[in-house]
Amino acid sequence: MNMVKPILDPWSSEVPSDYEATMKAFGIGKMDDDLIKRLPVSHHFLRRGIVFAQRDFGRIVTAIESKKEFAVLTGIKPSGIYHFGSKMVIDQVKYLQDLGGKVFFCVADIEAFHANQQSLEDSAKLAVDNLADVLALGIDERSYFYKQSQEETIKLNGYLYARNVTVNMMKAIDGEQEMGHYVSALAQVGDILLPQQPKFGGPKPTVIPIGLDQDPHMRLTRDIAAKQRLILPSSTYNKFMHSLGGQAKMSKSEPLGMLTLNDDEKTVKKKVNRALTGGKESVEVQKKEGASPEKCMVYELLLFNELDDEVVKKRFDDCRAGKIMCGECKADVIERLNRFLKQHQEKKKKMMPKAEKILAR
Amino acid sequence: MNMVKPILDPWSSEVPSDYEATMKAFGIGKMDDDLIKRLPVSHHFLRRGIVFAQRDFGRIVTAIESKKEFAVLTGIKPSGIYHFGSKMVIDQVKYLQDLGGKVFFCVADIEAFHANQQSLEDSAKLAVDNLADVLALGIDERSYFYKQSQEETIKLNGYLYARNVTVNMMKAIDGEQEMGHYVSALAQVGDILLPQQPKFGGPKPTVIPIGLDQDPHMRLTRDIAAKQRLILPSSTYNKFMHSLGGQAKMSKSEPLGMLTLNDDEKTVKKKVNRALTGGKESVEVQKKEGASPEKCMVYELLLFNELDDEVVKKRFDDCRAGKIMCGECKADVIERLNRFLKQHQEKKKKMMPKAEKILAR
Repeated sequence: MNMVKPILDPWSSEVPSDYEATMKAFGIGKMDDDLIKRLPVSHHFLRRGIVFAQRDFGRIVTAIESKKEFAVLTGIKPSGIYHFGSKMVIDQVKYLQDLGGKVFFCVADIEAFHANQQSLEDSAKLAVDNLADVLALGIDERSYFYKQSQEETIKLNGYLYARNVTVNMMKAIDGEQEMGHYVSALAQVGDILLPQQPKFGGPKPTVIPIGLDQDPHMRLTRDIAAKQRLILPSSTYNKFMHSLGGQAKMSKSEPLGMLTLNDDEKTVKKKVNRALTGGKESVEVQKKEGASPEKCMVYELLLFNELDDEVVKKRFDDCRAGKIMCGECKADVIERLNRFLKQHQEKKKKMMPKAEKILAR
Repeated sequence: MNMVKPILDPWSSEVPSDYEATMKAFGIGKMDDDLIKRLPVSHHFLRRGIVFAQRDFGRIVTAIESKKEFAVLTGIKPSGIYHFGSKMVIDQVKYLQDLGGKVFFCVADIEAFHANQQSLEDSAKLAVDNLADVLALGIDERSYFYKQSQEETIKLNGYLYARNVTVNMMKAIDGEQEMGHYVSALAQVGDILLPQQPKFGGPKPTVIPIGLDQDPHMRLTRDIAAKQRLILPSSTYNKFMHSLGGQAKMSKSEPLGMLTLNDDEKTVKKKVNRALTGGKESVEVQKKEGASPEKCMVYELLLFNELDDEVVKKRFDDCRAGKIMCGECKADVIERLNRFLKQHQEKKKKMMPKAEKILAR
């Protein structure tokens, strides 16, 4: 079982120490102030160190500054309901879209076929709900939404990109796996390089918001992009959102630790009330010594989702100072989440027919 | 350098001893008389032991007997001019076509991309000449001709068939290779199972004439066919045609040892006159002791290409008995080949526009 990794003080640009070695080894830089300042609009993920690292993001910032074309790519393996960890990625895509990026959204049904033994038909069905979330979160419906299994360029290029790729290179990404995983990885290279294909106007800067664990795919893609004389794609790296129990990453594999975009008020209340906090053994001790927001999953929900910096900062300080107890904090976070979810679910309902239509293409 | 493998006495059904172990290990049977007798029309390749083995060919014979649908698949990696070794495969396909098989003809441009570093565009150009040969050799122009890179079913299925295929299974086929070879092999599985796809009416017996060296691809395909609930494809195995120098298989890698379907009279004469024979050190000795047609590349040309059994049998006997000398034999074989080539090249010329049209699709 993974230990809880400390959540950083908001507004700190400190990088978790276990990331540093990876970043150094593979040429990933900090998301530093010089870059952030050049962006015309800020984002709380940047201000709070949630998006903490980047590779070649300067190329994207330059495109934004000079109002040049650039692409933002993301995708889903449609194997369940969107949770707040998935939302975090879409929030980043939305931000980059609003800065001028053209969004490419991939339904990774070939990957789901191999990783989850899920048929292409089931993926198409499951993706409708996810896509409605994505649209409700503000991704432009004129974005390029596609299914891997239907995108001819990707299917062909996956075969062609295999040139000079060794089995050892594939192992470096996924470990020793069956061929299904390896061909999925090649299809994913096709996804990342799709915005640069002739049908979309050729080479252009492209950025992909990912977690550090996905970086091996980026490195393979950049190797191949160089051979194809395409622009090496850029990436940004976000910290992962923990499961509510504090173990590992929020994911479908731990349903009770996952807060989904479909959860109703009661479910949110129940799940958040059970979440791991940084509270002390008694109210008395906590009032005296203060608690540890940096270890608290409820605080993390606020940190990732509350747009108002002042609210987050005050909560952090009050918690540390023992001025707010867990019960009151939880009730407040539950209310904020439910307020967001109510609005979101209304928007999403309206987006369902659109999502269905897009995926029926 | 490979040693010359003895060519068998025509009408012998003996199998080269170095093949036996492979056949036994992988469940390949002899092409025995019981099967051959059931065929409504004979073929000199069967009578002369050139097509010497099979797996599940009985399923095809049954389809022929009961006038049921079956498919014959073949293909080319378009990387050069057709030679007599390539012709031999098309001769088999033609025979099976005439027995009622629907022909599927694959231009393996993904394979050529990886194995020969040849662009898809170059493959399309080079394939025109090959396809004109194929049409001139009697393959029905209503056959299903396609390019791997353009056939959507194959491209997608190549990805999906990778499920449960291990890297070790791929190594068993081609040895330790880069991913390009492995994805080509998966595309080839897609080729072999193409006739059974819904767009062609679903499962049906399919036969592929190959050399024993290509059998690992058949075994992989049969594994995958079983998982896909398709009919396990059948195969027949031909002996390979030697290069004119007697080393190894006739192939593009040894241009002077290769007799092509584009060669003119003079070139045929020059090449055949230089070919390895089974002749003795002098005419005197040869007249007395006879020569060795089973080691002679000129005799092999006759054995594979002359339709009249009597001519072949007489040549074999006369050679062994020292009744015909190499000069006379060569002149005769040159004349026969040039007679065939003259007719073929005329037909081929007429087929060029058709071939171009088919490949422009």
